[in-house]
Amino acid sequence: MDKFIVIPDSFKGTMSSNEICDIMKSTILRYYPAAEVVMVPVADGGEGSVDCFLQALGGQKINVMVQGPFGEQVEGFYGLLDNGKTAVIEMAAAAGLPQAEGRLNPLTASTYGVGQLVADAVGRGVSKVIMGLGGSATNDVGCGAAAAIGVQFTDKAGNEFVPTGGTLGEIAHISLENRLKGIENVEFVAMCDIDNPMYGEQGAAYIFGPQKGATPETVVLLDDGVKHVAEVIKKDIGMDLAQVPGTGAAGAMGAGMLAFFGAHLQMGIETVLDTVDFDNLLKGTSLVLTGEGKIDGQSLRGKVVVGVARRAQRQDVPVVAIVGDIGDNVAPVYDEGVSGIFSINRLAIDFKEAKHHAKEDLQLTVDNLMRFLQRIKK
Amino acid sequence: MDKFIVIPDSFKGTMSSNEICDIMKSTILRYYPAAEVVMVPVADGGEGSVDCFLQALGGQKINVMVQGPFGEQVEGFYGLLDNGKTAVIEMAAAAGLPQAEGRLNPLTASTYGVGQLVADAVGRGVSKVIMGLGGSATNDVGCGAAAAIGVQFTDKAGNEFVPTGGTLGEIAHISLENRLKGIENVEFVAMCDIDNPMYGEQGAAYIFGPQKGATPETVVLLDDGVKHVAEVIKKDIGMDLAQVPGTGAAGAMGAGMLAFFGAHLQMGIETVLDTVDFDNLLKGTSLVLTGEGKIDGQSLRGKVVVGVARRAQRQDVPVVAIVGDIGDNVAPVYDEGVSGIFSINRLAIDFKEAKHHAKEDLQLTVDNLMRFLQRIKK
Repeated sequence: MDKFIVIPDSFKGTMSSNEICDIMKSTILRYYPAAEVVMVPVADGGEGSVDCFLQALGGQKINVMVQGPFGEQVEGFYGLLDNGKTAVIEMAAAAGLPQAEGRLNPLTASTYGVGQLVADAVGRGVSKVIMGLGGSATNDVGCGAAAAIGVQFTDKAGNEFVPTGGTLGEIAHISLENRLKGIENVEFVAMCDIDNPMYGEQGAAYIFGPQKGATPETVVLLDDGVKHVAEVIKKDIGMDLAQVPGTGAAGAMGAGMLAFFGAHLQMGIETVLDTVDFDNLLKGTSLVLTGEGKIDGQSLRGKVVVGVARRAQRQDVPVVAIVGDIGDNVAPVYDEGVSGIFSINRLAIDFKEAKHHAKEDLQLTVDNLMRFLQRIKK
Repeated sequence: MDKFIVIPDSFKGTMSSNEICDIMKSTILRYYPAAEVVMVPVADGGEGSVDCFLQALGGQKINVMVQGPFGEQVEGFYGLLDNGKTAVIEMAAAAGLPQAEGRLNPLTASTYGVGQLVADAVGRGVSKVIMGLGGSATNDVGCGAAAAIGVQFTDKAGNEFVPTGGTLGEIAHISLENRLKGIENVEFVAMCDIDNPMYGEQGAAYIFGPQKGATPETVVLLDDGVKHVAEVIKKDIGMDLAQVPGTGAAGAMGAGMLAFFGAHLQMGIETVLDTVDFDNLLKGTSLVLTGEGKIDGQSLRGKVVVGVARRAQRQDVPVVAIVGDIGDNVAPVYDEGVSGIFSINRLAIDFKEAKHHAKEDLQLTVDNLMRFLQRIKK
C-alpha cells in the first residue's frame, strides 16, 4: 500500500470536498505513514471549484476587478493551472447567488463579469478555459459574458446592448464577428452535470428560476426570452440548441457557452479527471478512496464515485466509496468498479442530528477501513 | 480465506444471533464459496439460549413436562451437548416472563420447573449443567428450583415448604442433605452478565422486580425476603453472598445457583466460548466476524465483541465487528483485538425507521466488507 488517491465529492450540507480530502489523507497516514496520498478534491462547477483545482494541481489564483451580477465592481478571481496554459473559472465568482443575496433579480442579473474573467485569462495566453457552471444568480443565456468578449447583440433598431434575463426578447441579431482576438484558438469546456434543456417546463427558467427570485410570472417571461434567444442563435449562428441536454444549466449559460464561446459541455467529474490526468495518477496506486453525500443505483451519469471507478477499473486499481447515505439498489455501482461502499452513519439517528458530527464520523469510518486493511494485508 | 467464524450477539429489537449468523454466512459464501464458515450464535442466557448452543454444537433437545411459574404443567426443554455430557438449560423455559404474561406475580412465581429440568438432566448422567439466567418471572432466589432437586426449606414450626418470593421470610432453616444423588459431582455454570447484588437498592427486587409486576410495596417485601434468605444461607450453608456481584440475577437465582447447586457464575460470552471450544475453533481461521447491537468503549465486561476479540488476538486471528450503533470512544475495543468496526446504518434516519430493514442493512454491510476483502486480497 504505497500510494493512495483520495478523490471525494463534497457531502452536501456537511463537508466540502477539500475537508474530506484532508480527513481521508490524515487518517490513511496514521496507518501508512510512508505512503504517498494524492488529494483530488472534486470541483462541482459551483463555488469552491477554482480552489479544488488549485489544491489538486497547484497553480496561481488571479484576482481581477470585474462587474458583479448587477453591474457593481467586485473582486473576481480564477485559477491558472498547467503553467498558465489552462484557466479555470467558476461563474459564481462574478455572477453568483451569494453576491446577489438580498437583491435577487434574474431579470436584471448579468454574467458580464464572467466574460471579463475569460477575457483576462485569454489575455494571458491560456489555450484552455474550464468554466464551472453552478451557483448562478442569472438567467441571461450567458449573453452578458458573451458581450464581455466581444459578441454583439443588437435590437430591431440596430442598437447594440447587453441583454439580461428581462431583455432577451429584444435581441434581433447576434454577431460573433468582433470577438476577442485569439479566442477562436482557445478550447472551452463547460462543466455541467444537469440535463435540462434551454427552455420549456424542464428548462432553466422553470426549474431554476424560482431559487433565483423569479415569481411565476417572471418565469414565463424569462422562459419566453430564452426561447427567443434559441431562435436567434439558430438563425445567426446556425446552432440548433433547443433540445441539447445541459444547455439549461446556469440560467441557460450552458447554451451560451456552446453558441458564443464554442465550448463543449462535459460532466464535472470527467473534466476533473481529465484535468488532473487521472489515468496517469492511477499508475502505481494501491487504493482509491472516493465518496459522495449519497450513493444509489439510479442515474449514474455525472456521479463522482462512478466516474472515478470507471477509470480505475480500466487500470485494475481498487476503489472504495465512503458515503453519507447508501440508497437503494446500489448493485450497478459495483459493476462500474467499486469494491466496497461504506456509510459514515454510525448511529441510527436523523440527519439533522448526525450532520453535526459528520467530520468525526467520516474520520471513524476511514479509520476502521484502514485498520481492517492493514490487519488483513499483514 | 479458507475459514471464517461468525459469532455475533443478538441485535436487541431487530435480529436474533441466529438470524445474524445466517445472514453473515450466506453473504460470506457468495464471495468465498469454498470457505468453511463456522456459525456460533451467542446465547445470552435468556430465551433462545438452548437453541443457540444446539445450533453451534449440535446435540439433542429434550422435552420434559414440568411445573410452570405458577404450578401449572408446561412443556419445558433443555439441550444435551457433547454426547450427553453437558446439559444447557434456559430458566426462561420453565419460569419465563412469556409464560407468566397476563398474570405476572413475583410473590408467587416459582423456579420449581427449572429444578425439574436439572433433575431430568442429572438423571441422564450429565457431568455439567449450564444454566442460562435470564428472562425470569420469578424472585424466589432459586428456592423453587432447589426444592426440586431435594433442598429442604423449613419454617419456624419445622414444616417443609417450597418458598416463593412472597414467603422467603418464612424460611427458618435450609438443608442440602437430601439433594438428588450424584448432583455433587455435577459441575454447574450459571451464565450471568450483570453485577447486581442479591438485595438492596441495586438488588434483584429493586432493579428487576417492577418488570415482573412488582409494585413499590411488593419490591420492599421481596427485597426483605431475599435479605432474609441471605442470612439463612450464611447460617446454614456457610456462604456469605450478600455482596457477591451477579447474585441478584434472575430474581436472585444467581445466589441460589451458588448456594444450592454449588455453581459458579460466569459471563455468558465466556461460557459460550468455553463450551464451543473457541480456542480450538480459531485454528486455521482467516477472519472472525462478530458483532452486537451497540458497541462503545465503556464497560467492556461481558461484551460479546470484546470477549471474542481477546481470545482471537491471542492466536493472531483478525476480528471485525459488525454493529448496530457505534458509540463514543471505541478506542479500548481496538486494544482488545478488534481490527475494524462497521455499522449497519446506511441512512441517517432514526432507529424506529431503520429497524425495519435491519436485516437488509446487515446483509449490505457484510457484502461490502467481503467485496472489499476479496478485492484487496486479489
